[in-house]
Amino acid sequence: MKTLTRYRTFNTQRRCEFINITDYVSEAVRDSSIQEGMVLVSAMHITSGVWVNDAEDGLLADIEEWLDKLAPKADYRHHKTGASNGDSHLKSLLVHHQVILPITKGRIDLGPWQQVYYAEFDGCRPKRLIVKVMGE
Amino acid sequence: MKTLTRYRTFNTQRRCEFINITDYVSEAVRDSSIQEGMVLVSAMHITSGVWVNDAEDGLLADIEEWLDKLAPKADYRHHKTGASNGDSHLKSLLVHHQVILPITKGRIDLGPWQQVYYAEFDGCRPKRLIVKVMGE
Amino acid sequence: MKTLTRYRTFNTQRRCEFINITDYVSEAVRDSSIQEGMVLVSAMHITSGVWVNDAEDGLLADIEEWLDKLAPKADYRHHKTGASNGDSHLKSLLVHHQVILPITKGRIDLGPWQQVYYAEFDGCRPKRLIVKVMGE
Repeated sequence: MKTLTRYRTFNTQRRCEFINITDYVSEAVRDSSIQEGMVLVSAMHITSGVWVNDAEDGLLADIEEWLDKLAPKADYRHHKTGASNGDSHLKSLLVHHQVILPITKGRIDLGPWQQVYYAEFDGCRPKRLIVKVMGE
Repeated sequence: MKTLTRYRTFNTQRRCEFINITDYVSEAVRDSSIQEGMVLVSAMHITSGVWVNDAEDGLLADIEEWLDKLAPKADYRHHKTGASNGDSHLKSLLVHHQVILPITKGRIDLGPWQQVYYAEFDGCRPKRLIVKVMGE
Repeated sequence: MKTLTRYRTFNTQRRCEFINITDYVSEAVRDSSIQEGMVLVSAMHITSGVWVNDAEDGLLADIEEWLDKLAPKADYRHHKTGASNGDSHLKSLLVHHQVILPITKGRIDLGPWQQVYYAEFDGCRPKRLIVKVMGE
């Protein structure tokens, strides 16, 4: 069994930003030389998400608007700590903070439209992501 | 370390359909001869989901109605591409497109009521699922 | 490849309760002697969740209130079976019932604020959780 671990730091310009990281994950898988296994892609912060979906700008804007409806900016109890990102925590819970991708014949085994996204919900500061490849 | 990979194609009759795939996943685990490990069950499309929950028809109807409330059919920006399935993408994000099940003593290690479901949100065409078993 | 499997039973005093299990998972990882790998933390019931987020009481209360809004107690079809926990099933789907944590140098590789929670949505009776460590 082999593993490879990589960390990537994001520092987005906007509070909410969705970044296509499919190539970054593919590169880690290739560099691992693992032929069969899985790769975990997981945010290391509690106000970020990771998902697999479409690379279509209209849909990305739809997702942002929709998440703002389901987990709106509001006056949360959490803000008594001085924080102002209650909605970002809820958005992270909603979309989940991680995915695990299958590796087959040395490549991430995605369907035709599947792209991996890092979703920043409270950016403008350094946030880390871990990619761990595991297999043989 | 051993792995086994299977693909299954669904072509549902209705746009939205929930299919119990517990036996299919169990069979893949049995055929892999893996005693201890994990099995990833992951939709290969961006308008489908996979979850673990109850095999109870009333609840399945509740889930469908509830998802239509949280991620309604509507006029999304995504539809400018010619698509009409914006709600299906959001539903996929909401329920997540994958689960990973533990394997213990050669079987998927589920609780008493846990059943694995493939959730189609934009059917009536071929859609694939990947099952990857990994362990020893 | 090595694995270690543990089960923990919860029997909460309240119907809805969120329990920090980070130390419990860390202990399982330490006892496994696995240096590089992954640990699956998964509820074995269909009315519970597992998530990674903040250990902050205000936020936990926010999450409970928010989940009650998105998946309210109501008169579900599921209740025709005699059950009264339709909302608990929907909450479980919403937050997901599992996470998978990376293990690096013998420890769970979490970000600065990441804590692992078991979320009970239908308690006051025994419910199980599985922790499966896998790696080398």
